[in-house]
Amino acid sequence: MSVLVVGSVALDTIENQFGKADDSPGGSALYFSSAASFFSPVNVVGVVGTDFDFKIINFLKNRDVDLNGIYIEEGKTFRWGGKYHLDINKRDTTFTDLNVFQNFKPTIPKAYQNSKYVFLANIDPELQLKVLDQINDPNLVVLDTMNFWISSKKAIVEEVIKRSDIIILNDEETREFTGNPNLLSAGKEILSLGPKYLIIKKGEHGAVLLGENSFFTTPAFPLELVKDPTGAGDSFAGGFVGYLAREKNMDKTTLRKAVVYGSVIASFNVEDFSFNKLILLTENDIQKRFEKMREITQIE
Amino acid sequence: MSVLVVGSVALDTIENQFGKADDSPGGSALYFSSAASFFSPVNVVGVVGTDFDFKIINFLKNRDVDLNGIYIEEGKTFRWGGKYHLDINKRDTTFTDLNVFQNFKPTIPKAYQNSKYVFLANIDPELQLKVLDQINDPNLVVLDTMNFWISSKKAIVEEVIKRSDIIILNDEETREFTGNPNLLSAGKEILSLGPKYLIIKKGEHGAVLLGENSFFTTPAFPLELVKDPTGAGDSFAGGFVGYLAREKNMDKTTLRKAVVYGSVIASFNVEDFSFNKLILLTENDIQKRFEKMREITQIE
Repeated sequence: MSVLVVGSVALDTIENQFGKADDSPGGSALYFSSAASFFSPVNVVGVVGTDFDFKIINFLKNRDVDLNGIYIEEGKTFRWGGKYHLDINKRDTTFTDLNVFQNFKPTIPKAYQNSKYVFLANIDPELQLKVLDQINDPNLVVLDTMNFWISSKKAIVEEVIKRSDIIILNDEETREFTGNPNLLSAGKEILSLGPKYLIIKKGEHGAVLLGENSFFTTPAFPLELVKDPTGAGDSFAGGFVGYLAREKNMDKTTLRKAVVYGSVIASFNVEDFSFNKLILLTENDIQKRFEKMREITQIE
Repeated sequence: MSVLVVGSVALDTIENQFGKADDSPGGSALYFSSAASFFSPVNVVGVVGTDFDFKIINFLKNRDVDLNGIYIEEGKTFRWGGKYHLDINKRDTTFTDLNVFQNFKPTIPKAYQNSKYVFLANIDPELQLKVLDQINDPNLVVLDTMNFWISSKKAIVEEVIKRSDIIILNDEETREFTGNPNLLSAGKEILSLGPKYLIIKKGEHGAVLLGENSFFTTPAFPLELVKDPTGAGDSFAGGFVGYLAREKNMDKTTLRKAVVYGSVIASFNVEDFSFNKLILLTENDIQKRFEKMREITQIE
């Protein structure tokens, strides 16, 4: 089953102790697609400037990723810069040049309007609502957002949450959205708005899948070297949604496996800059790490 | 098999959003004993002032905890004060009155010198070394310490690490000791000093058990209300060492179960001030939460 993702396509400039990446491909829609495409076909809706060279994402074409929904607008592609601390879990944004992304009004191509699996990557929640208005009858809507929208447009974020099935937030966003420092009860407050599940991403500490009467937690895959955490959240979401779309199922085991596959893909993604690692990844690599996740969490 | 613990006996004054506890029993040795005693007999070595009223820890007598190694010295008992933030994972120390603890020179009673299971709670590492000199042939030495000793007496902490089998640190201490922000490789640096295992406590994010060729991770038991995290680390250690001493075994499954039992006991401890929760706890309560830990981490 195909997955539709609406999000950003960016050129990232990343600096940290391990090196530098200049104008390398990134953005939520591409990180998501790279990850989800291991499990399902993906249709991408986004925007780039006339300076965007599609050759740099040629690898996505071998993976059943349809880029026809990426609009090319007069101007420059969205650019983002980040500098990571020595503790790679922390970073500063060095610049944000929205460029053509500033006026992005996502139009969903007719061919995608019957999408059953939809991922609303982190964009303005008003646009996320407009995306949902264009989808006929989705089975599953998964939502990502960020602190910027929570603090500036909370009521609208809340509206999108109410129209989504699964919300993905990190721990800080969960606390900020609710004003509740206890993650579990904060999570339950978010569930009370209507979605079936909340996933709380905790970076190096893994992720939690919270349902009304269920709780599952998985660690991050242990890594001695994290080279570039950019895109970790979106590649997690890609693995998660991609797996669910492949299985066409939302039972307990499938959901839990999807969370673990998401974590596994994210763990590969952070081992190198941009898509360098995801480009080379094989299904066997993924499966080996999935089994390892089982081993390191199993009590006996 | 009995466990020997050498550590502090304190009267704590805790303040937070849920209330206040004044001069209530605490300290590493007592938190450890309360927890370990669910699994094994415990012998405690510590010091109190003449103002200490042993009646307030009467509950430990019903649990095979031998308090004969607690010396009573002229003066006042060690007192500590802490104030927790709205985010209960953060706290400030409001005062530290060492009192009789200032001159604590632990003498191990003859009856304890053949102890096979030893927990060195967080005290001056020079004293920890002196404790080890008085133990004849322990099977297992488990060590706790803190950032204060890591920054002020690192070389001596390193000596104690070399003479211990299992080290328990929190994530910040692990990073501080090694200067390495990556937890996994920092952990391996510590293992290279000689101990067989390192446990990294991560508060609300659970704990990691790291061996030379092994890795296990468990979440913290999910709680909607954490009322007082004081003693969480020591009650974790108590559950962990107590279980190992009962099982007299260090195989993979026993170690993993010990980590989970440690987490379970700590999760009860933080649900109320002082020992209020541990006093009432039953084996059935512990077992139920242990099974729940299995359920929330099991992929399928």
